[in-house]
Amino acid sequence: MSNSDVLAPQKQAETPPITPMPTAPPASDMENQSGASGILRRWKREDLLKRGSLALRGLALLFSLLSFIIMASNKHGDGRNFDQYEEYRYVLAIAILSTLYTGGQALRQVHELSTGKFYFSRRNLALLDFFGDQIMAYLLISSASAATPMTNRMREGADNIFTDSTAAAISMSFFAFLSLAVSALFSGYKLANHSYI
Amino acid sequence: MSNSDVLAPQKQAETPPITPMPTAPPASDMENQSGASGILRRWKREDLLKRGSLALRGLALLFSLLSFIIMASNKHGDGRNFDQYEEYRYVLAIAILSTLYTGGQALRQVHELSTGKFYFSRRNLALLDFFGDQIMAYLLISSASAATPMTNRMREGADNIFTDSTAAAISMSFFAFLSLAVSALFSGYKLANHSYI
Repeated sequence: MSNSDVLAPQKQAETPPITPMPTAPPASDMENQSGASGILRRWKREDLLKRGSLALRGLALLFSLLSFIIMASNKHGDGRNFDQYEEYRYVLAIAILSTLYTGGQALRQVHELSTGKFYFSRRNLALLDFFGDQIMAYLLISSASAATPMTNRMREGADNIFTDSTAAAISMSFFAFLSLAVSALFSGYKLANHSYI
Repeated sequence: MSNSDVLAPQKQAETPPITPMPTAPPASDMENQSGASGILRRWKREDLLKRGSLALRGLALLFSLLSFIIMASNKHGDGRNFDQYEEYRYVLAIAILSTLYTGGQALRQVHELSTGKFYFSRRNLALLDFFGDQIMAYLLISSASAATPMTNRMREGADNIFTDSTAAAISMSFFAFLSLAVSALFSGYKLANHSYI
């Protein structure tokens, strides 16, 4: 069951496609055709990977920007300022880092997709992508987890605009983590399959 | 620079190895030899992957078991019991989960290495490995991060056996996270390279 779907593309390449053609082409032509379709399929998959990775980075950028803005504007007087609590400062710091990282990556990807120019070697880029995504994902889940218990405890006592904004910022950090975790999967796949060559 | 080391194995396979042999073997023999050495190299790499992954899982098992034991025995009277704080209960819960997961995986791997039998299809196993490692790594960093701020705040006030044990358990969780994060890299590589076939 599992091996069959892995081997499926190879099987398809071995058997010539049955199409309603007037005359049967020679064998060499058939091989060329299926080889070309394999390459086309690979190009399509890589294109999908690129666009998917760009979309995920865009989502992560949106969420971390929201987290950054919500947390930075979360000052409501004595005892209700985010900067009196180290957890919230941590969330803000990681949100800023993540905004910068995902913004830079998204800009670079848009630039590459539109011009086709690369500033670094593609292998180094793939490495940078993967480790960057993975490390940012760990940092984001870490900051969201660090800020959650105190917010929980505060919200047990009183529900006000300060605790609500904090919860919103933490949720945004968590969504940014989810996007970057999936993006790390994509770039890990790209790195391991050498599709950067 | 980057492409050269990727292409290195192919180059080596093209040029026949220069060895002090009495008579030069025929060309077909040489090809067989280099093909066989390529397969051998692949086997060696996969063997290294297997052993490395087993060693990392063993480390993760050790660290999460330590975290579990230290946190579970951390009861020192009123106000100094771990189960009065939800963060520490979270650390304990994740340490138990991680101990069970890494223990099960290590047992399975040892069994596979010694008998060569597999209970599931290898593709499903590779998927399970990768997602299991990755999710446990996220849970471990999350629990360690959640428990850190309160422990910090307690240790600013007073340094006693309760806060010291807590800090030790958190550190062990963090080390378990590091091991599993690297193990996830290994299993991600295995998954993406289809080396499970």
